[in-house]
Amino acid sequence: MKLEQGQKLLFIGDSITDCERAKPEGEGLFQALGKGYVSYIDALLQAVYPEIGIRVVNKGIGGHTVRDLENRWQEDVVNQKPDWLVVMIGINDVWRQFDTPFIKDWHVLIGEYEVTLRKLVVETKPNVKEIVLMTPFYLESNEQDKMRQKMDQYGQVVKKIAEETNCLFVDTQAAFNVVLKELYSATLAWDRVHPTAAGHMVLTRAFLKEISFNWNRT
Amino acid sequence: MKLEQGQKLLFIGDSITDCERAKPEGEGLFQALGKGYVSYIDALLQAVYPEIGIRVVNKGIGGHTVRDLENRWQEDVVNQKPDWLVVMIGINDVWRQFDTPFIKDWHVLIGEYEVTLRKLVVETKPNVKEIVLMTPFYLESNEQDKMRQKMDQYGQVVKKIAEETNCLFVDTQAAFNVVLKELYSATLAWDRVHPTAAGHMVLTRAFLKEISFNWNRT
Amino acid sequence: MKLEQGQKLLFIGDSITDCERAKPEGEGLFQALGKGYVSYIDALLQAVYPEIGIRVVNKGIGGHTVRDLENRWQEDVVNQKPDWLVVMIGINDVWRQFDTPFIKDWHVLIGEYEVTLRKLVVETKPNVKEIVLMTPFYLESNEQDKMRQKMDQYGQVVKKIAEETNCLFVDTQAAFNVVLKELYSATLAWDRVHPTAAGHMVLTRAFLKEISFNWNRT
Amino acid sequence: MKLEQGQKLLFIGDSITDCERAKPEGEGLFQALGKGYVSYIDALLQAVYPEIGIRVVNKGIGGHTVRDLENRWQEDVVNQKPDWLVVMIGINDVWRQFDTPFIKDWHVLIGEYEVTLRKLVVETKPNVKEIVLMTPFYLESNEQDKMRQKMDQYGQVVKKIAEETNCLFVDTQAAFNVVLKELYSATLAWDRVHPTAAGHMVLTRAFLKEISFNWNRT
Amino acid sequence: MKLEQGQKLLFIGDSITDCERAKPEGEGLFQALGKGYVSYIDALLQAVYPEIGIRVVNKGIGGHTVRDLENRWQEDVVNQKPDWLVVMIGINDVWRQFDTPFIKDWHVLIGEYEVTLRKLVVETKPNVKEIVLMTPFYLESNEQDKMRQKMDQYGQVVKKIAEETNCLFVDTQAAFNVVLKELYSATLAWDRVHPTAAGHMVLTRAFLKEISFNWNRT
Amino acid sequence: MKLEQGQKLLFIGDSITDCERAKPEGEGLFQALGKGYVSYIDALLQAVYPEIGIRVVNKGIGGHTVRDLENRWQEDVVNQKPDWLVVMIGINDVWRQFDTPFIKDWHVLIGEYEVTLRKLVVETKPNVKEIVLMTPFYLESNEQDKMRQKMDQYGQVVKKIAEETNCLFVDTQAAFNVVLKELYSATLAWDRVHPTAAGHMVLTRAFLKEISFNWNRT
Amino acid sequence: MKLEQGQKLLFIGDSITDCERAKPEGEGLFQALGKGYVSYIDALLQAVYPEIGIRVVNKGIGGHTVRDLENRWQEDVVNQKPDWLVVMIGINDVWRQFDTPFIKDWHVLIGEYEVTLRKLVVETKPNVKEIVLMTPFYLESNEQDKMRQKMDQYGQVVKKIAEETNCLFVDTQAAFNVVLKELYSATLAWDRVHPTAAGHMVLTRAFLKEISFNWNRT
Amino acid sequence: MKLEQGQKLLFIGDSITDCERAKPEGEGLFQALGKGYVSYIDALLQAVYPEIGIRVVNKGIGGHTVRDLENRWQEDVVNQKPDWLVVMIGINDVWRQFDTPFIKDWHVLIGEYEVTLRKLVVETKPNVKEIVLMTPFYLESNEQDKMRQKMDQYGQVVKKIAEETNCLFVDTQAAFNVVLKELYSATLAWDRVHPTAAGHMVLTRAFLKEISFNWNRT
Repeated sequence: MKLEQGQKLLFIGDSITDCERAKPEGEGLFQALGKGYVSYIDALLQAVYPEIGIRVVNKGIGGHTVRDLENRWQEDVVNQKPDWLVVMIGINDVWRQFDTPFIKDWHVLIGEYEVTLRKLVVETKPNVKEIVLMTPFYLESNEQDKMRQKMDQYGQVVKKIAEETNCLFVDTQAAFNVVLKELYSATLAWDRVHPTAAGHMVLTRAFLKEISFNWNRT
Repeated sequence: MKLEQGQKLLFIGDSITDCERAKPEGEGLFQALGKGYVSYIDALLQAVYPEIGIRVVNKGIGGHTVRDLENRWQEDVVNQKPDWLVVMIGINDVWRQFDTPFIKDWHVLIGEYEVTLRKLVVETKPNVKEIVLMTPFYLESNEQDKMRQKMDQYGQVVKKIAEETNCLFVDTQAAFNVVLKELYSATLAWDRVHPTAAGHMVLTRAFLKEISFNWNRT
Repeated sequence: MKLEQGQKLLFIGDSITDCERAKPEGEGLFQALGKGYVSYIDALLQAVYPEIGIRVVNKGIGGHTVRDLENRWQEDVVNQKPDWLVVMIGINDVWRQFDTPFIKDWHVLIGEYEVTLRKLVVETKPNVKEIVLMTPFYLESNEQDKMRQKMDQYGQVVKKIAEETNCLFVDTQAAFNVVLKELYSATLAWDRVHPTAAGHMVLTRAFLKEISFNWNRT
Repeated sequence: MKLEQGQKLLFIGDSITDCERAKPEGEGLFQALGKGYVSYIDALLQAVYPEIGIRVVNKGIGGHTVRDLENRWQEDVVNQKPDWLVVMIGINDVWRQFDTPFIKDWHVLIGEYEVTLRKLVVETKPNVKEIVLMTPFYLESNEQDKMRQKMDQYGQVVKKIAEETNCLFVDTQAAFNVVLKELYSATLAWDRVHPTAAGHMVLTRAFLKEISFNWNRT
Repeated sequence: MKLEQGQKLLFIGDSITDCERAKPEGEGLFQALGKGYVSYIDALLQAVYPEIGIRVVNKGIGGHTVRDLENRWQEDVVNQKPDWLVVMIGINDVWRQFDTPFIKDWHVLIGEYEVTLRKLVVETKPNVKEIVLMTPFYLESNEQDKMRQKMDQYGQVVKKIAEETNCLFVDTQAAFNVVLKELYSATLAWDRVHPTAAGHMVLTRAFLKEISFNWNRT
Repeated sequence: MKLEQGQKLLFIGDSITDCERAKPEGEGLFQALGKGYVSYIDALLQAVYPEIGIRVVNKGIGGHTVRDLENRWQEDVVNQKPDWLVVMIGINDVWRQFDTPFIKDWHVLIGEYEVTLRKLVVETKPNVKEIVLMTPFYLESNEQDKMRQKMDQYGQVVKKIAEETNCLFVDTQAAFNVVLKELYSATLAWDRVHPTAAGHMVLTRAFLKEISFNWNRT
Repeated sequence: MKLEQGQKLLFIGDSITDCERAKPEGEGLFQALGKGYVSYIDALLQAVYPEIGIRVVNKGIGGHTVRDLENRWQEDVVNQKPDWLVVMIGINDVWRQFDTPFIKDWHVLIGEYEVTLRKLVVETKPNVKEIVLMTPFYLESNEQDKMRQKMDQYGQVVKKIAEETNCLFVDTQAAFNVVLKELYSATLAWDRVHPTAAGHMVLTRAFLKEISFNWNRT
Repeated sequence: MKLEQGQKLLFIGDSITDCERAKPEGEGLFQALGKGYVSYIDALLQAVYPEIGIRVVNKGIGGHTVRDLENRWQEDVVNQKPDWLVVMIGINDVWRQFDTPFIKDWHVLIGEYEVTLRKLVVETKPNVKEIVLMTPFYLESNEQDKMRQKMDQYGQVVKKIAEETNCLFVDTQAAFNVVLKELYSATLAWDRVHPTAAGHMVLTRAFLKEISFNWNRT
């Protein structure tokens, strides 16, 4: 297990991360971590490794793009002084190009996405123990689908930045693809974006695998 | 994995099982399975074994005792024709003796508890593939605590019936005890009964272990 | 214009037809016809042909399949004595096979779909002036998509029944396909099923074209 | 069709335009454009001309007069940089003189109305591609009715300004008059002001005709 | 003053009478009599004639026609055993012919109106001290308006029945006409039907005048 | 009638005046004047004298004492520029001495009451046409009751100031006393302070009498 | 202390007893006993005599008279099999005569009151250990007040029945009178009927004194 | 009785003190003092000593620690100028160490607790008549329980400061321990912290004993 005693693990992202977390502070009891994969990860860390006392914080906000993250980075990441930082962003950056194609202001094109994400990672890396970059995803099994293609390109950017900056990396699309071979996308998300509990478990497993979590630990 | 292709897996119990499930039918999308361990188990089955297609149904109702289960057994268990049946009951049977000690009508004493639970199991066993009996639990680490002692006795009854009737058996109290060595009970449940997400993960792992679920399966 | 002075035009279907209509009676002022294509059609008939006084009734109910329509056919169609009857059903019949694949009871397979729909149409045809059959649709441009393929098959059944029984026929999928060439499906429906206002206008135009409505009439 | 590829089309006005639009920004999905004629126009543009990608924005606010429009013109029109601007205002300017006759402060008399509207149009004309001026209206068929007479005078002002400034012009009262010959006003609006869906379709058709929209385009 | 010590005075009618009264029983404290003319009449009787103790009951129900009154006459009039009965009905009988002209079932034409109202009055007259018949009204000053013409005809029917059966009679339209000479109808009712407080005072004065109420009594 | 064409009549006071009026501006349609005597007076002025067009404004606020009135006098009276000003204040000044006797800060004793009220009246008198001073009241028929005695003293202060400053004067307690001879106080107000509709009619009549309103005017 | 180990103590009455208790069953945790004197008595019994385990049940219902109690006596008293029964009724029997004097049906005159209350007590006495009769009360210090006089008469009836039937007796009016010498009635109840917490403590002390409760017990 | 005529008695603390009190000002009628021990103490003072007129103020706020009290001390204590000050704080200081052990920022360790509490008491003592210090408590009968042990240590700190500064002192834990010998903790508080009405009566009695309140006073 890569996480160590007493570390603070902060997640930042969009609605997939948010999942009705408490605001402004996304930590504490009473579902303060929301109902999604952040809550599941916290629950599994406590259930399986109760003695190491990881402090999990959720800073996801629904609808956000990497542009929004940049705006609140100082307050929601830097000031929080996390030991570990996990970033999953990009779905809305892509989605707006497809669901509101005529409102160009709302689109975060791949150039801006890459520049912004790299800047945030590079600036932050020296001040934290680890950064985990998770790709955005789209629950569509057809690889020729236009939005899936675009999302894959954004995922490639995340991978590239992770390699350049020596971050941990989680390919969420790849993890979902395994399940999409068996189940039609509507089972996992009516809108192909917001996962059911099963989808959040896919994210949970993909993240925990990357940090060498051991489910079978007594 | 003991569950097989296309089986129907039904959970019945009290508020720990219920967890705001949809009513009257506790299955389908949109959190119909509630927010607790039943939902987690369903999510993990879909995420890790998507191809076997287990149909999970939640029939928990908050506040219920084994006496209440008997009253709705025909409708909520027999008529549902499950392949697998999971029963976790007894917390309220015990709790009412401690939180409303003067209202004797509400107490289900250990004799009635044992007779009723055995009758339900014995009658149902021939008609299902498997029954899993899960003990009730109390998130109190002091074994001399009076309510913990009583709950342990009810747990012993469950174990005895499981052995007699050849049911699968999950000792939830034992699973929680491991975590309670590291964490004070208030971390897992303010009232020592209704678990946080971490507590529901303890239940989830205990159940999945009994049915030979493999987290690391690709 | 095929509709004539004072006729009663009744729509029956699922959530696409329903669209928050008043219940139990779906007619009258104050958005009683809902917010979807039924309301648009009624509004255009009144605005363009105010003198012919068509009485529009909405009997859509969200989530319904052809099996549900059969159950309420006597009350919601026969007893209503419409002059024109419009039926658009089948989306949920197909969708449940893809979003809740393990709950087989909820699936209306193509055999049952065809038999039921034909029976309803054949029985009703002699008692009304006209029946319009509209295909179900799926806002997915990839024709190889499994759910789109299945939906197309159900649409073929509708077409076949329309031809056999000499009903008017509206191919809603074909109408949407024209738009889907230009716009990604997420623009028209986040879940590929419930259309935006634009999607409802596509349905409206397709229906009105079939009944020879003239937009340019002074 | 006078609208061209990628143009931004902004509507400003009172409650007839507003119709429960999202605030502060009246654009995007989820009924952000409200439930009235702006939404219908947007839907028809997308459904019939999906490839030209018009961005529609709704800046109507219930209860507003031309005096209120002047106050928010900089923010809601100038800063928005629309290509096309559509203005329909004046109903409340007149109505307050009739429904709260003793509160003189609330009345915008015809002199102030004309001066203000002309000023706004003249200042804005050079910075946009087109301005469409729509008259206010009153759903009363009796031309001798005092409020109808007054509303007609305000409509004349709009016409005069449109001619002076070379704006497109929509005579909404004339469009409604056609329908009022066949239907009593209560069918179109209980209060003779806020139209039903049918009334909004009358506005929609009148506007679309002025911009040479072609309903029959394949 | 025609009312005498301890009499029970029951009003029945539509939404003008109802005005959010308590249901099912429209009497007692806490605005049980609603917010309209019934409440005003009761308040003035208590304030000016406190010693005669009139029991006022409100049985108005919004949307009702004379057809609806007939259906609930036994329960809401006969069983109540009033000394005085006041009936004001007919607005919806007429209005539905103008606001939903295509739904013929909802129209109560003048023949049915007259027959039904006469029957109710004739049957009830012998069992009560007095019946007061109030005309329906329409707050439109143009006597050539189609709905106003129709309403006047219904008012004539009420007058005829009052004369035949020797009932007290209140011409509410005439009372409103005095005010409509000075004020535009929108001041008294946005929809020309549901009066403001001022309109309810007009009704109050018209009724009280008929029963010889003396405002100036010390 | 002392009120003249087009005058503005402003009422200020406590909850008896307030009665759920619109805030911040207490004028206009839709019960903006509240549900109490101010609304009744406005309604009667419009119903009986429609041609003189009195603009009525309600500035009552629940719980206020003369001390609170002083704090908002500039904004709610002076800036409003009324022609007529009506003041009814003092009930809370007295009541707090009886319902929360231990919280001395909340009591406005008679000395402060007199000084403050006189100052407000004297300063305002030159700038308005008329001031009407209405006494506070207490719906208790026992003149020896301690709170009734105190309220009577405050009423005496109001009378004295009215005489000194040549204001119109309404003795509300005297008006209520007539009714209290016939009806027990609980009929008019459960708490002896907030009147029923009948109580508000008593206030209405007392005020209208002072300004020579003629109920019987045709 | 007259109460003994494990007894069931049932209170029945009107809104003073009810105080927002849980319904239908007024016992258990979470304020099931309401917020008034029943809750205080239960709390003091548990706090001071925790070992005797008295089961307290609240069957008060707001607005009820002795006539209503008779209607539900079988279900709410007899079937409950209490050891001790406490009855406080009569306030509404009297109040309706004063707050709605014209609705005679709602008045329970003293004859009916006495006959009904005696019948209920006589029939029930043999089946319970003890009955405590508490007088109704009115928080008015003026003994000449008409409603206070009437309430005192009803209290006399209760005293007489208590003596005849050998019940325990609590004179609540006498207990309040002590406090009313020092505090004006508005401090204890705005409407002279529904007490503040202080008023409920007066009731609590009066009841506990009658059953020899010892506050100073260690 | 140590309290004297007209004194102001202010309570400050956490949720046990708060109990849904009115905010910002915790005094006056209508449950402004909340539903807990502060309300009970006020009610008993008024009921038993009505003539001394104690003004009770509640300044508890849920979730607060001594650190939060220090932040609002100037406004909520000093500015209020109480005669008597009652402080019960520390439960959250301890609880956060046990229910959210990983969020160290939220823990107020015993050193900070002692320093802060002493500072507040020492600074305030000269300006008030009396300070009463009440210990925090934990409704757990097992003295070896870790949180109970810690709470006892905080209670020792309170006792030490009370002795040093010559304050009155209430050992709430000792008062609860008497009851916990007879009743299981769940009867008094599901979460061992927030007491039922019975628990609040224990606090009430403990406080009143310290100030020599006499329950049996006539």
